[in-house]
Amino acid sequence: MLQLSLIGIGTGNPKHLTREAMEAICAQDLILIPNKGAGKDDLAGLRQAICADVLAGAASAPKIVEFDLPVRDPATPDYRQRVEDWHDAIAEVWQATLAAHLPKGGQAGFLVWGDPSLYDSTMRIAERLGRRMEMQMRVIPGITSVQALTAAHGVPLNRIGAPVQITTGRQLRDAGWPAGCDTLVIMLDGECSFQSVDRPAQVMIHWSAYAGMENEINIAGRLSDVQDQILSVRARARRDHGWIMDIYMLERLR
Amino acid sequence: MLQLSLIGIGTGNPKHLTREAMEAICAQDLILIPNKGAGKDDLAGLRQAICADVLAGAASAPKIVEFDLPVRDPATPDYRQRVEDWHDAIAEVWQATLAAHLPKGGQAGFLVWGDPSLYDSTMRIAERLGRRMEMQMRVIPGITSVQALTAAHGVPLNRIGAPVQITTGRQLRDAGWPAGCDTLVIMLDGECSFQSVDRPAQVMIHWSAYAGMENEINIAGRLSDVQDQILSVRARARRDHGWIMDIYMLERLR
Repeated sequence: MLQLSLIGIGTGNPKHLTREAMEAICAQDLILIPNKGAGKDDLAGLRQAICADVLAGAASAPKIVEFDLPVRDPATPDYRQRVEDWHDAIAEVWQATLAAHLPKGGQAGFLVWGDPSLYDSTMRIAERLGRRMEMQMRVIPGITSVQALTAAHGVPLNRIGAPVQITTGRQLRDAGWPAGCDTLVIMLDGECSFQSVDRPAQVMIHWSAYAGMENEINIAGRLSDVQDQILSVRARARRDHGWIMDIYMLERLR
Repeated sequence: MLQLSLIGIGTGNPKHLTREAMEAICAQDLILIPNKGAGKDDLAGLRQAICADVLAGAASAPKIVEFDLPVRDPATPDYRQRVEDWHDAIAEVWQATLAAHLPKGGQAGFLVWGDPSLYDSTMRIAERLGRRMEMQMRVIPGITSVQALTAAHGVPLNRIGAPVQITTGRQLRDAGWPAGCDTLVIMLDGECSFQSVDRPAQVMIHWSAYAGMENEINIAGRLSDVQDQILSVRARARRDHGWIMDIYMLERLR
């Protein structure tokens, strides 16, 4: 029987790891690390470093195996269908990797960036795996980039008693600012969608790249004042590091 | 000079503590714990237990001081004004307690339930303190009850590429289900506001009380099927423990 643990590890700062996550890493037989290809991002390397750090001095150590992630098929025009197909392909790779390295079952873990519940596909892929083989799933919560963002800026997420919407760059561009909600957190935004916001002089932005990590960059101010600065700082950081992960909060001023 | 650390501790499970939070607890000169009065809740006791656990075997230990929280004045009719006045009163108590126990400045910490950014007043009270005395503030992110909820149920928070609104029971009752968002997380709901939702047969609920803690209770299903069960289980748990902290996620089915 396979026990699959999805272990939230926070946003790349080894100090974001919870006790629960550290104990879970040590308890695995096998840890699977997706490899998106050299140069694309540092995330496989970061996960390896986090494992090495946690396992230093541990009584027993899991086997750590990297596997190649399949790529999304750009020929599939519908975004959701493209993602669904991709998740199926990844579940297939997981199954083959588990069969090769843990043929008799046991404890297998994935280190999930942030928290497994938020804009992450690992839980959906695990559900697909559960249709292919008998398994149990356990989720270990982690610090999300939303918390890393607000901690970096030292600001509350919500106004007193007011709602907050967590959404994507695509949603902001396509559906506009949601009615009835003055605070938004924008994730998964490769296109700096804050440029589509109306009346940027009436909007505060708190923007962070690599939130929680050593090379964290924070910019805050009225959107109209700082958006050009964010565009140029973001482009430079992406060039310098070879990848970028950013998040921001928008607040409509009244 | 005062350095104030707001330390997110997660939702009462000592294993939710991050490395960063544990190091910060050990590094304080003084830890302040609000005391809401015996029998009202276990939270002061839980914070004391978390400190004792983290500080066992630590090289140096902060002084731990409980202080009485002022109460909100029910005579102030406006909700936001009542909260603002209350935060001012708490900042005054903080200042007096700091003057008594840390007269020459140093490191003072607060253990904040969940994360300091989400539906928590500690950061707003710290801002008020900053207007009264010179200080620096540091925020250490923590696992929120949103993560504890989704981990307990093993469900993703968002649908693929879709938004999520985090809001309050009062907002759900007064403003209704927000347009354009099929997934809601309801916090601060003392009144089981899920009862106000239209077409409960078309809504999934994932409900947890004491999420992440030993006595965690989880109920999930169609709202029409499980809402009565949640009402009775919640009432009993509240009676048995003397307090309750619950949270839930609502998902509109399409």
